[in-house]
Amino acid sequence: MGTLNVTIYNEFVHERKNEYVKKLYPEGMHEAIGGYMQEQGFNVRYATLDMPEHGLTQEVLDSTDVLMWWGHVAHGEVKDEIVDRVQKRILDGMGLIVMHSGHMSKIFRRMMGTSCGLTWREAGERERLWVVNPNHEITRDIGQFIELPNVEMYGEVFDVPEPDELLFISWFEGGEVFRSGAVWHRGRGKIFYFRPGHETFPIFYNKEILKVLANGVRWAKFNGNTKALGINVCPNVKEPLEKLSPKDVELGKIDHPKS
Amino acid sequence: MGTLNVTIYNEFVHERKNEYVKKLYPEGMHEAIGGYMQEQGFNVRYATLDMPEHGLTQEVLDSTDVLMWWGHVAHGEVKDEIVDRVQKRILDGMGLIVMHSGHMSKIFRRMMGTSCGLTWREAGERERLWVVNPNHEITRDIGQFIELPNVEMYGEVFDVPEPDELLFISWFEGGEVFRSGAVWHRGRGKIFYFRPGHETFPIFYNKEILKVLANGVRWAKFNGNTKALGINVCPNVKEPLEKLSPKDVELGKIDHPKS
Amino acid sequence: MGTLNVTIYNEFVHERKNEYVKKLYPEGMHEAIGGYMQEQGFNVRYATLDMPEHGLTQEVLDSTDVLMWWGHVAHGEVKDEIVDRVQKRILDGMGLIVMHSGHMSKIFRRMMGTSCGLTWREAGERERLWVVNPNHEITRDIGQFIELPNVEMYGEVFDVPEPDELLFISWFEGGEVFRSGAVWHRGRGKIFYFRPGHETFPIFYNKEILKVLANGVRWAKFNGNTKALGINVCPNVKEPLEKLSPKDVELGKIDHPKS
Amino acid sequence: MGTLNVTIYNEFVHERKNEYVKKLYPEGMHEAIGGYMQEQGFNVRYATLDMPEHGLTQEVLDSTDVLMWWGHVAHGEVKDEIVDRVQKRILDGMGLIVMHSGHMSKIFRRMMGTSCGLTWREAGERERLWVVNPNHEITRDIGQFIELPNVEMYGEVFDVPEPDELLFISWFEGGEVFRSGAVWHRGRGKIFYFRPGHETFPIFYNKEILKVLANGVRWAKFNGNTKALGINVCPNVKEPLEKLSPKDVELGKIDHPKS
Repeated sequence: MGTLNVTIYNEFVHERKNEYVKKLYPEGMHEAIGGYMQEQGFNVRYATLDMPEHGLTQEVLDSTDVLMWWGHVAHGEVKDEIVDRVQKRILDGMGLIVMHSGHMSKIFRRMMGTSCGLTWREAGERERLWVVNPNHEITRDIGQFIELPNVEMYGEVFDVPEPDELLFISWFEGGEVFRSGAVWHRGRGKIFYFRPGHETFPIFYNKEILKVLANGVRWAKFNGNTKALGINVCPNVKEPLEKLSPKDVELGKIDHPKS
Repeated sequence: MGTLNVTIYNEFVHERKNEYVKKLYPEGMHEAIGGYMQEQGFNVRYATLDMPEHGLTQEVLDSTDVLMWWGHVAHGEVKDEIVDRVQKRILDGMGLIVMHSGHMSKIFRRMMGTSCGLTWREAGERERLWVVNPNHEITRDIGQFIELPNVEMYGEVFDVPEPDELLFISWFEGGEVFRSGAVWHRGRGKIFYFRPGHETFPIFYNKEILKVLANGVRWAKFNGNTKALGINVCPNVKEPLEKLSPKDVELGKIDHPKS
Repeated sequence: MGTLNVTIYNEFVHERKNEYVKKLYPEGMHEAIGGYMQEQGFNVRYATLDMPEHGLTQEVLDSTDVLMWWGHVAHGEVKDEIVDRVQKRILDGMGLIVMHSGHMSKIFRRMMGTSCGLTWREAGERERLWVVNPNHEITRDIGQFIELPNVEMYGEVFDVPEPDELLFISWFEGGEVFRSGAVWHRGRGKIFYFRPGHETFPIFYNKEILKVLANGVRWAKFNGNTKALGINVCPNVKEPLEKLSPKDVELGKIDHPKS
Repeated sequence: MGTLNVTIYNEFVHERKNEYVKKLYPEGMHEAIGGYMQEQGFNVRYATLDMPEHGLTQEVLDSTDVLMWWGHVAHGEVKDEIVDRVQKRILDGMGLIVMHSGHMSKIFRRMMGTSCGLTWREAGERERLWVVNPNHEITRDIGQFIELPNVEMYGEVFDVPEPDELLFISWFEGGEVFRSGAVWHRGRGKIFYFRPGHETFPIFYNKEILKVLANGVRWAKFNGNTKALGINVCPNVKEPLEKLSPKDVELGKIDHPKS
């Protein structure tokens, strides 16, 4: 199928401002993730908030199979016109993988139509991500669960539409649960949300977490029907496929909006 | 459960500009629909584009159980801040019923996350809406199908997320099919899309179509859990429910965004 | 809507053989559940394994709106012909509520098409059932979670089809999670699985658990389209609704099976 | 991924008894389908009703990636023990593709849990299968629709669980619609139902229909998590993953059923 083109967006703010995070991810979380993705044979590019157009030009998006997204403190600084552009590209078939605090990003909320709220606690507690769907490309080669010693907790209610497929449910030491891995389809695009990945923990060095993300990339690539009509338009198909019976109604003459 | 409060939004443009439509719906499509809803015992209010805040003030929305929506040529004139407000209220539990060309409204596209595109043809052809889910409150007391003699055609691909439940599929004389009745859940709100209802045909006087819409209102009302935590927020739940084991990690000191 | 007719099936074996269980549920778990259901105004009947036809005669089923099911050690003794009968009645609109170890009952496995397997441990540990869908009739008037001090644990993978709606996820003290409350639609019938309810713990005296079950009864009652064609048959509809064009094919003369 | 092993089951009755069908499919419908599948590079085997164990021995199933199924007049002659065996293998990861009148087969009804009823008419009318999901491996390289000049009609209500993904909706000349292509997941197995394929029409020689079926085979192969726990069992996981607090309850001593 050719080499997959993966673009990793990271707002890249914590790693520059916070000494603790800088020590953990000196080149940014995107490079920690990207290094693994390159080992998988993917063609990897990076995009950060401070780049022109946040690094997400039309050209970059048009040549991206799967976009990965990490953001946290600077969701509000992402320009609406870029969000519009990313949404349109997803509807046309680009995959989207949203990680951790990316749940509050403009693009994820745009695609979900919901608030994407949840509860949270930063206490470094233990998490166990249980696989609840063992017949899925994304959970491939993962055992019954993944255990992480120290994480930020996310708790229910996670305000997202019922997932098309639920893949992981997390157990937290402090008593909560969370739907940590889930997928949705929107237009021709596939979307995977995966919870792990806080900036103050070395989670993006965890080989099992990285494996799930790489599985997600393979799953999210467009696999569909290039012959089919575009679905981002409203064409007037004037000629019926079947012969119509004579009509005795007067058809109103109304100017219709351009789609 | 008390009287249901229904607000019917109609952009109310065609009925004022086009003689043909004016003759058909002299008081506007909203009043044709609203009259039937009043007969059902619902408390009905109207909202139109030209009213202050399009008639959708916070006060009106807060006291609305179910909002019905018809728009066509003036989707773009609906203010984004009003769309934001309606979305928030739906996520908090208000039902939404979108009719016919409302599929391209800002609010429907906002809730779906997709383009909501489709194909169309205005040839006054015959439509037969088949019930594919006979065990649903919305198809109650409807037979195998509803037949409409003259309609505008809508064809697939209808670019919406896979419905939570598909209720009606339309057959068209000209050779197309369409998923004409479908429901989705978003946050605490329920959404029903129903295809019939073009401005140049007397479809909003059809008793079966009106019955489906009234069933939709009853279904879409909030029925849930008033005790549960709000889902439009991201609270920090600092105190764990279970005692945590001692942590030997240094927790990064990072200012988190306000939700 | 008139009084709801609820039939509670309990295999009623543990309560007669085990002194501990007998002390806990002297009249059987079905009467503990049934007492609460009567307080809700439902018309309650009981069915047990040792009754003729397990108490599930055609007459009983035909007059049952919702059937509740508890079984454990005697799933294999339920006659296949009774399971056939119950399945047919569910497809025709009777609701089904399956409790706890009923997940391995013939009727639940029949309706799901899967093994319905899971992992389990009997250690009297703590369980917290989190509401993940606060806009559902079944979670009505329940808070963020229900806590049970001592339970048998059930763990994932729970081998059921992806639920139509997931309502509860359990957290267990021992480290597992479980999809504890979920609903499916089959034919005209609605199915609710709810995990709590082990024979050696007083869970069927817990008011919150009973409230969820009563909510489940109200939700599972048939609410649909009595006018629609039966869906348990394959009728030959010889006359087309539209006039067909002339056919130049020879139609094979084949005797078709009776449906 | 290695060569895919496809087994095609055909009851192979019509082709031997009816002269018209014999002329159309002299080697049986299975060989018409199988020839195309071999051209795709799949390893193809055949199974017919009259073979020992209907050709579906444990050995054959264990080495089958995807099973295709065609049956019509002899559903009742398929032995229940073979259906049990096929079901178990599907739950363990074998794909299943059910064609046309196979909707009433024991195995499809077993997997669905419903009656799988529908309406039908044999009038050689025109059918147009519309793609409603253009981003799916199964609709790959198919245009907006497939047109078939002469078919047996199938109409709604199709009594199956709401599909996980709906792929095709058919328009019929006589006025009906039908959900003609749909997928479900059961256990680790994937199931694809595809409507075309009547014994008296040359549909299994249509290249587009065959392409969809071949796409279905590729999609339905097991792609999942070989490391995960089996899901056809109920293991007792005696040792908790977390240390439990002391329990002051007496745990009932009850002999549990073997799973």
